[in-house]
Amino acid sequence: MSSNESLDFDLVVLGGGSGGLAGAFRAAAHGARVALLEPGELGGTCVNVGCVPKKAMWLASEVSAHLRLASDLGFDVPERPSLDWPALVASRQRYIHGIHASYLRRLDEAGVVLMPARGRMLDAHTVECENGTRLQAAHVLLATGSSPRRPDVPGADLAGVSDDFFALCEAPPRVALIGGGYIAVELAGVLQALGSRVDIFARSERLLGHADAELAQRLQENYRHQGIGMHFGYRLAAIEGEDGALRLRDANGCSSGDYAQVLLAVGRAASSSGLGLEAAAIEVDGDGNIVVDAFQRTSQPHVLAVGDVTGQVTLTPVAIAAARRAMDRVFGGQPEAKVDYENIPSVVFAHPPLASVGLTEAQARERFGDDVHVYRSTFRPMLQALADRPQHSLFKLVCSGAERRVVGLHLLGEGADEILQGFAVALKKGITLDDLHATMAIHPTSAEEVVLMH
Amino acid sequence: MSSNESLDFDLVVLGGGSGGLAGAFRAAAHGARVALLEPGELGGTCVNVGCVPKKAMWLASEVSAHLRLASDLGFDVPERPSLDWPALVASRQRYIHGIHASYLRRLDEAGVVLMPARGRMLDAHTVECENGTRLQAAHVLLATGSSPRRPDVPGADLAGVSDDFFALCEAPPRVALIGGGYIAVELAGVLQALGSRVDIFARSERLLGHADAELAQRLQENYRHQGIGMHFGYRLAAIEGEDGALRLRDANGCSSGDYAQVLLAVGRAASSSGLGLEAAAIEVDGDGNIVVDAFQRTSQPHVLAVGDVTGQVTLTPVAIAAARRAMDRVFGGQPEAKVDYENIPSVVFAHPPLASVGLTEAQARERFGDDVHVYRSTFRPMLQALADRPQHSLFKLVCSGAERRVVGLHLLGEGADEILQGFAVALKKGITLDDLHATMAIHPTSAEEVVLMH
Repeated sequence: MSSNESLDFDLVVLGGGSGGLAGAFRAAAHGARVALLEPGELGGTCVNVGCVPKKAMWLASEVSAHLRLASDLGFDVPERPSLDWPALVASRQRYIHGIHASYLRRLDEAGVVLMPARGRMLDAHTVECENGTRLQAAHVLLATGSSPRRPDVPGADLAGVSDDFFALCEAPPRVALIGGGYIAVELAGVLQALGSRVDIFARSERLLGHADAELAQRLQENYRHQGIGMHFGYRLAAIEGEDGALRLRDANGCSSGDYAQVLLAVGRAASSSGLGLEAAAIEVDGDGNIVVDAFQRTSQPHVLAVGDVTGQVTLTPVAIAAARRAMDRVFGGQPEAKVDYENIPSVVFAHPPLASVGLTEAQARERFGDDVHVYRSTFRPMLQALADRPQHSLFKLVCSGAERRVVGLHLLGEGADEILQGFAVALKKGITLDDLHATMAIHPTSAEEVVLMH
Repeated sequence: MSSNESLDFDLVVLGGGSGGLAGAFRAAAHGARVALLEPGELGGTCVNVGCVPKKAMWLASEVSAHLRLASDLGFDVPERPSLDWPALVASRQRYIHGIHASYLRRLDEAGVVLMPARGRMLDAHTVECENGTRLQAAHVLLATGSSPRRPDVPGADLAGVSDDFFALCEAPPRVALIGGGYIAVELAGVLQALGSRVDIFARSERLLGHADAELAQRLQENYRHQGIGMHFGYRLAAIEGEDGALRLRDANGCSSGDYAQVLLAVGRAASSSGLGLEAAAIEVDGDGNIVVDAFQRTSQPHVLAVGDVTGQVTLTPVAIAAARRAMDRVFGGQPEAKVDYENIPSVVFAHPPLASVGLTEAQARERFGDDVHVYRSTFRPMLQALADRPQHSLFKLVCSGAERRVVGLHLLGEGADEILQGFAVALKKGITLDDLHATMAIHPTSAEEVVLMH
């Protein structure tokens, strides 16, 4: 292709993360001619520096926790066996390369034109690649994702972000995690389990501000028990020192001890700059998020945006679903296709995991006042009990109305990550406490506690 | 109490297993005066020689499998560490004693009179204890459970049954398991994982005759891979040899090699003899099961029976639910309370576990003919992939009708035991394939595969 050649596509996708790929595949399946521009690795944050490697590290730390239980159960294993971290990372990256290869094969099969280049919009229908190639697009799908924020304090560059966590080849002896959201909670849990000593410094007064307060409280107790230090209401003023010996200074001028690594997990920002949005007259909000309507349409209705770059519920499955439905609408003759942003289940891969769908107790009380009925189950899973470990699970059901309609379900405990999905289907369908009770329990499991709550 | 004293109760319960206890607690909660007769340990089969210790041993064998994965992931642990089996059994029994203590405390709190004695009915309203005490009962609840069958072949007494499995203090080097049902499958999996070399001898042509054929087939492949030998269409004619060196002889006169232990898992029989059922004119069927109607009423309507002794779906939660609903009906003013025996979810704690609710593909085709639509997901869970193990999960969805109503869900794979419960609630509520697709996936989990099937 010469640099001034122009190519016509039904759809040009900017960003080869989960949302962009899902959109490209779905549009191609509907017969659209599609080009996908991605200058980096396919799979975006989720596959490369998010859900997938995070889950891999979480699985390793769960196995590590099992090793300690194994010793309590009577297996002749060391309680804290050494870990060949580079070998683990190699397995993880092999797994990720497998996903890359699968994407490439599927793009090829689908006839999607993949351009390993950054793209920017010259106008509402023209996308220019880095090499000068110009693409004419009947529709554009913006799916460029997000990247970690850095706080505006001196020395912020001395710290790493979640991306850097995935570059580690050993457990740093002492780690400071800045932030109290799910990324901080997940990284802290994994690092502590794999041998680091971790302290969390959060601006908020508790972990996981969006989670049910009672479960967050219980998780904090678990984390304390695991040896994780927690500092709330913390105002970071500066990061000082040098590589391998970093210190935090707070707004009162107090300095922390030394940390081998400081990791920032203070949120993520939409990757919306450099896309030519101004030239294409596409609106962004004050945080840089691309503004979309319920059908993922930007201020230029033929330009769609999905996933983190919109700042909407920033979860991979949401980006995928949004992209697919948008393509079903545009190319598939389904004019009403869109994502329902209510009752989206999600999991924080903490230790143990925390899984949630629907309203927290506080949200339910805000919406329904006194007509909120909460049911709880606190129990020790059998494996913890056999090993004589204190860790209890806490399951919490939030209902509303005389018929006890289920409006929220919050699970903290072993297996919560796998238990929630089916209940999320049921909750979306609309169930009451009676519907839970009418279903036979599966004994002995943790999941049965949900249908046995009174 | 003197032996000819007579005591009046609203309810006399025969059998202190899960069903009997649940009935006693529920009746007492409704204000009934209750006596419970149990000559052995409280908790019956489930707590003492069934679900609970089985799950404990299964958990240990899962941990053992994790140890092998741990080594592949890079942890410095032996692949096959030795197990202090007596220590494991001690933990397991401590856990069970905790349940006994909790039952005793709760019976005391509920004001239930516990009699550590066998009881038999003298007539439809009189129960006599072993010591001669006679109880007058307005209602009787029969919940005496079941016990393992032995085949009628020479040498059957040389073999053990599932009860004897729980008396083991080490893994026997070679074990023959007679039977192809869930008990054989569960014991075989645990023993093989904990160090035995296991052969299964089943009369049927495959494992788990009631499960979906495709999943059973896949489980057999997993078991073969784990080193379990399987012999189908096997006709046991005799068990020969002596303790520690037992041989099986089949109908053709062929003898097997030596086994340290032979375990029979050829089914269970209702424990209905010696209860005075004839004197009370209570009907039993040809297999010894007490005949009940949908409200758990025997041929004497004030005498109820629940659980294994009825031969109905022999699962602990079913016995519990049946007992509770029967008591709600009799003492709680809920004349329509009864168990719905449709769509009862259950799990076989195999390696990996197999979880099922609703119709198998074969059952669906029998009921709906050609209007059956099957969706499958075969995938390797991330932990297996990271460890470069071949074990794949197989999830299977059975739908019927143009609207693709979900009539069965069958899961074989890690986490299946915990994944199923929520989907069982949804399936009972009535869902279609669209309802699954409308629910956001939780990524990355195994459970999400259920809502992503196409």
